[in-house]
Amino acid sequence: MPLCVDLSSFKHTLRALKLIMTSFNKGSMKTFRLLVSLDEALQLIYGRIRQVEKAEEVDLDDAVGRVSAEDVKAPFNVPFFDRSAMDGYCVRAEDVYGASQFNPVRLRVVDMIGVDEEPRRPVGAGECIQVATGSIIPEGGDAVVMYEYTERIGEEILVYRPAYPGENISKKGSDIPCGREVVKKGDYINASKIGVLAALGKARVRVYEKPRVLIIPTGSELAKVGDNKSAMQIYDINSHTLAAVVKGNGGIPVLHEIVPDDEKEVEKALQKGVESNLIVITGGSSVGTKDIIYDVLRKRGEVLFHGVQVKPGKPTVGAVFEDRVVLAMPGHPTSCLSNAYLFLRPVLRRIARLPDTGLKTVKARLSRRVVSTLGRRFFLTVRLRNGEAEPVFKESSAITSMAEADGYVVIPENADTVEKGDWVEVYLFE
Amino acid sequence: MPLCVDLSSFKHTLRALKLIMTSFNKGSMKTFRLLVSLDEALQLIYGRIRQVEKAEEVDLDDAVGRVSAEDVKAPFNVPFFDRSAMDGYCVRAEDVYGASQFNPVRLRVVDMIGVDEEPRRPVGAGECIQVATGSIIPEGGDAVVMYEYTERIGEEILVYRPAYPGENISKKGSDIPCGREVVKKGDYINASKIGVLAALGKARVRVYEKPRVLIIPTGSELAKVGDNKSAMQIYDINSHTLAAVVKGNGGIPVLHEIVPDDEKEVEKALQKGVESNLIVITGGSSVGTKDIIYDVLRKRGEVLFHGVQVKPGKPTVGAVFEDRVVLAMPGHPTSCLSNAYLFLRPVLRRIARLPDTGLKTVKARLSRRVVSTLGRRFFLTVRLRNGEAEPVFKESSAITSMAEADGYVVIPENADTVEKGDWVEVYLFE
Repeated sequence: MPLCVDLSSFKHTLRALKLIMTSFNKGSMKTFRLLVSLDEALQLIYGRIRQVEKAEEVDLDDAVGRVSAEDVKAPFNVPFFDRSAMDGYCVRAEDVYGASQFNPVRLRVVDMIGVDEEPRRPVGAGECIQVATGSIIPEGGDAVVMYEYTERIGEEILVYRPAYPGENISKKGSDIPCGREVVKKGDYINASKIGVLAALGKARVRVYEKPRVLIIPTGSELAKVGDNKSAMQIYDINSHTLAAVVKGNGGIPVLHEIVPDDEKEVEKALQKGVESNLIVITGGSSVGTKDIIYDVLRKRGEVLFHGVQVKPGKPTVGAVFEDRVVLAMPGHPTSCLSNAYLFLRPVLRRIARLPDTGLKTVKARLSRRVVSTLGRRFFLTVRLRNGEAEPVFKESSAITSMAEADGYVVIPENADTVEKGDWVEVYLFE
Repeated sequence: MPLCVDLSSFKHTLRALKLIMTSFNKGSMKTFRLLVSLDEALQLIYGRIRQVEKAEEVDLDDAVGRVSAEDVKAPFNVPFFDRSAMDGYCVRAEDVYGASQFNPVRLRVVDMIGVDEEPRRPVGAGECIQVATGSIIPEGGDAVVMYEYTERIGEEILVYRPAYPGENISKKGSDIPCGREVVKKGDYINASKIGVLAALGKARVRVYEKPRVLIIPTGSELAKVGDNKSAMQIYDINSHTLAAVVKGNGGIPVLHEIVPDDEKEVEKALQKGVESNLIVITGGSSVGTKDIIYDVLRKRGEVLFHGVQVKPGKPTVGAVFEDRVVLAMPGHPTSCLSNAYLFLRPVLRRIARLPDTGLKTVKARLSRRVVSTLGRRFFLTVRLRNGEAEPVFKESSAITSMAEADGYVVIPENADTVEKGDWVEVYLFE
């Protein structure tokens, strides 16, 4: 059998090889070379972030959702005295050990202590003192019998149930002993922590400042929302979706004006980031001729990665500029929002010292078969309808891919198809 | 066998019966008679709430987390023109049908269109025009080949892959056709809705006003946080935990000053509620002698229920006063916070027109056996440690029952015990 060589094919194979080599060696095409996984990308960023250090003092009611920048110790015992935990009668427990529904014990009511009064006399044998929830327990008394188990007859009561010593009494310091550390530096302040701070009378709380996030929209085609746009322009969407995610995760969004596709302008914008804790750039992170963000970051800063194995959102750059982490997001609105949930949210929360809680999830069945891309983690936007997850992903440039979505489903790198009816976990947008 | 009657027992049985009858007839003891279930209680309230009607206009970036009070229709097509979805070369698809890695097609590059430029000439046969993502598609062109599949040689390119008509082109109006309703009245505005509003250039959004929630703390023993308290007093905790929950669920907390246990004073405070959408009272909802809230609500308003089959939080009153729903919570901090999550949160969200999303949950194994009370739904506060749910509930008066908790576990009415190691669902505090 003769060896048959198609010289034309051979020539093109060489050319194709040369093309690949060129892009590797000169970087002229800036093709994505070494895509990192999402986890690798996050680890690279985490290694370089600086958590907020500055603190500020805020009113107690403004401290909810913030992170404590101080250790708070109880300056007094809670309760301050032994107090009644119920409305009823303070008794000597031993007097009523034998009480029952059919053999009640009769006690004399010798006083009544309001919640804001000091006891005037002790509880003697055969006696009781009426108390309210919170009343101070008088000398001699060691249990409180609830009204429900008593009957009042003039100046006496019948007790229909026994009580053990200490019953319905909150001992001094039993809740919070004096000196106990109730809130630690770094603790997230939720409603219940607000409660314990209130119990200690703390009207002002030192909390960490909210991180400032500079958002830089780039693209000569962009128009500012609120301005009249020309037919050629499109409105800047990403600044606003990013601002929403920043606000929802403990940060203060600082919106930069729109920056044209020009290296000098991008660099000038980046310089303003030194007043912020984190910089996010959108647009211009891909490999087109006008994609200059990567170049600027490479020249002026340090690139941690360029290209992540996710879909959408592959052309993402992680970098450091003047000691600040920079996230450069693709300009496509859906890629950018997906990136905001995958990168910006966890990174910002870590900078803000907020707990690393993920998005809320629900389980649902997929309404139709979905074909994914092997080797990239696919974030498929879905809408929830009748307990089914209905894919709404059109293309990453489409706004409706996200606007109609309730959340997204993650299809792993090693899955190429998810079948109709398969159970998926839907991450709900905030 | 002789009939044996213990007259003493008989006498007391009669007395016990009389006691029950008395409390039923005269209501003098105000014992809880007909406890309703949590679901019944919520339904009774839902039947009487009035959702916010007033709207206000806010900046786009302030609209996140709010509810739209208007239908928003697209005033133009998105995209406005046929646009390129990729960086690459706009071609006539039929020119490259035969292209492959080994048989590339050669095309002449006749122009380049920036994202902010109008096309200057059409794409002729054998020609292509360089485009960026977002560039307007010129006449004659009907596909965009990505850079990755081309090689530039001077004024020509080699195309290494075929393209189908329409490939990498976002058709005019394909994302949002002009006139399409993108946000409906009543829609919750999350980050992705912000995105679609931005795409339409909407700088101001009409949203429903946040409901105002008047919080009335009652109790003569209470001291205001920030003031110096006497030894007899305890700090007002509940106003602040309630305010935190109100803030976290789309409401504006309005803190009333502390009201002493006096019917006239409580009534005066309630009157101020007519400027609010919801009234929450804490303290004084139990059956003690000083528990006057129920009396005031019964006389001046309409009581929907008094007593709910939950633990803690049984002595809760639902009422209507001057057309406003009133929730009267027990004074114990843990009961009050538990109530805030069970009642206040869903009721407020409904008034605010916010989606009825529950708390975030995680599954964990119980770290020890827990004995509950049959007939009452038990909200057991727990802390998460090493994947285990560790009960921290001390008593409902204890602040640490909640301050040390990450969330709560619900033990149903018909369970009296949950064993160590059982899987439970933990509702995480916000």
